[in-house]
Amino acid sequence: MRTDEPIDVAVLGTGGIGKRTLEHIEHEDDVTPVAVCDSGGVAVDLDGVDYCDLVAADGGAVAQQGGSEVAALPDGRSTDDSIADVIEVHEEVDAVVMALPNIPHSFIPDTVERFLDAGYSGVMVDVLKRSRVIDWLEEMEPELEDAGVTFVCGAGATPGFLTGAAAVAAQSFVEVEEIEIWWGVGIESAYEENRGTVREDIAHLDGYDLESVAEMSDDEIQEVLDEHDGRLEFHDMEHADDRLLERAGFCSADDVEVGGILDVTQDEKPTTTTVKVTGTTFDGTTATNTFQLDDETSMAANVNGPAIGYMKAGVFYNRNGIYGLHGPAELMPGF
Amino acid sequence: MRTDEPIDVAVLGTGGIGKRTLEHIEHEDDVTPVAVCDSGGVAVDLDGVDYCDLVAADGGAVAQQGGSEVAALPDGRSTDDSIADVIEVHEEVDAVVMALPNIPHSFIPDTVERFLDAGYSGVMVDVLKRSRVIDWLEEMEPELEDAGVTFVCGAGATPGFLTGAAAVAAQSFVEVEEIEIWWGVGIESAYEENRGTVREDIAHLDGYDLESVAEMSDDEIQEVLDEHDGRLEFHDMEHADDRLLERAGFCSADDVEVGGILDVTQDEKPTTTTVKVTGTTFDGTTATNTFQLDDETSMAANVNGPAIGYMKAGVFYNRNGIYGLHGPAELMPGF
Repeated sequence: MRTDEPIDVAVLGTGGIGKRTLEHIEHEDDVTPVAVCDSGGVAVDLDGVDYCDLVAADGGAVAQQGGSEVAALPDGRSTDDSIADVIEVHEEVDAVVMALPNIPHSFIPDTVERFLDAGYSGVMVDVLKRSRVIDWLEEMEPELEDAGVTFVCGAGATPGFLTGAAAVAAQSFVEVEEIEIWWGVGIESAYEENRGTVREDIAHLDGYDLESVAEMSDDEIQEVLDEHDGRLEFHDMEHADDRLLERAGFCSADDVEVGGILDVTQDEKPTTTTVKVTGTTFDGTTATNTFQLDDETSMAANVNGPAIGYMKAGVFYNRNGIYGLHGPAELMPGF
Repeated sequence: MRTDEPIDVAVLGTGGIGKRTLEHIEHEDDVTPVAVCDSGGVAVDLDGVDYCDLVAADGGAVAQQGGSEVAALPDGRSTDDSIADVIEVHEEVDAVVMALPNIPHSFIPDTVERFLDAGYSGVMVDVLKRSRVIDWLEEMEPELEDAGVTFVCGAGATPGFLTGAAAVAAQSFVEVEEIEIWWGVGIESAYEENRGTVREDIAHLDGYDLESVAEMSDDEIQEVLDEHDGRLEFHDMEHADDRLLERAGFCSADDVEVGGILDVTQDEKPTTTTVKVTGTTFDGTTATNTFQLDDETSMAANVNGPAIGYMKAGVFYNRNGIYGLHGPAELMPGF
């Protein structure tokens, strides 16, 4: 894949993930953020938005004062509907990176719908997590095709990075029996800016769901963390890796298990992020291939690196007339 | 990627790799071998070549009698130029899998040239190993584009499987410092049918090259093996992984090191096949991600699974009008 053509991107959402997306993009000569927005503000500059203040510490200060960090940028201004302002310049955008919350579930599909209605015909990438969102996106597939939009869904860490790693690890086999994705995240120092992610993760615990956590106050979220001594362990999570691997023909969604440990009391990973793919080779051997991320790599690095990598694959597809919905595993060698 | 559309393939070469390619294809409902050839014979059947005898033990017996195993098939016949006979039916072929020796170097490029001259416009996949062959194929890139041929080069184990795994493992990083590919192969029982591969590997030892090993008798090859007690260790091999990762923009070819251990005295792997990718994340951490193949997976499984997987990616590209030369890492998320 050629990745040397310039790509103008819009980044929707500047929470914990969106900020780091912009930081990652600083290292990409061929990628320019021409539009950035948060809930209260938007910044548009077709030569490249100046977002230094946003990723710097003082950006957070603005947020803690309840203001829009993006509106406070040199190129920024306040707005009640910042996504509408990004959509206004959609013709100048090659790819839209959606670093948006999964609460409510419909937020990402609704946002895609708005871009389609406006006649956008580029790439869209999200870092969604929830399996059920795939159903909604699949219903939009004909629309995406007709609009000439290439949508790479679930392009973060899991689903995303680890989904793709599983697709590669499966290449030894003619049949996949089980895919185990196990992640570790330690975010003591990054906790403040990742409150949204932590809230979404709590929805995976027994007795909670996205609807109930959406209603909870920050104090109530904190109580749950305290009950677990700041260390949440998850099993059989409803992460979309399962649906995305099934879509690509690697295995049944039931054969995919996602779990992990989130620790807000330390930055060290509480457990090593590991993908294990067990299958049978053409010559009848059952075996397990393994992919492991270094404990030193941050969640932010493992979300944004792949998100930008998949975005580049999406741009390559889009520029070659390949549209519609594509999960990470569909961008890998076939199975 | 959709992998459910039928794919008619031609398999060129039925040595140790080609036979196992056909065995692997038995497990692929959507893949039909319509043409198969070895040096002395060809078998063509657009409904699917009956190659059972070839992959069965008695196929080998024919070879030991110096005959063409393919000619001995129900659909087979003898021919002095079997590739010409496959080229005759090129319009019925979606993908050509070249399980051909790398001796001489020019064999694969020359074969591609012949298909291009005949007006072939499908997919071609090889499992080549040598970096220098990439230069020759790159010179053919405009021809491939014009012909509408999608060429996936270096789509075996290494380069191929492990090249792709390295491209995925690199996704945590904004800069890759080093990629180490280390493989282990134990082929006591599969030695006879992999003599060609062993001969090519010996060319990587100090004091040998492809030209010199091409001149060596089987006894002389055996002597080299005996000198090393049947266990050959390789470092800094001229495998094309380096060029293919550089082409895709992941790192400089100099940052890629390939080595491994080949043991013809045991079927157990003498060492675990491992890919280590060291790089720096956007947030400034240097770390190493790791991919490991289960020791129980055979070389044949790790060559043919990926070869067929990459072939399917190539067919998807070809059917969407994406032609030219593509290495494994170019079929992965961008970098």
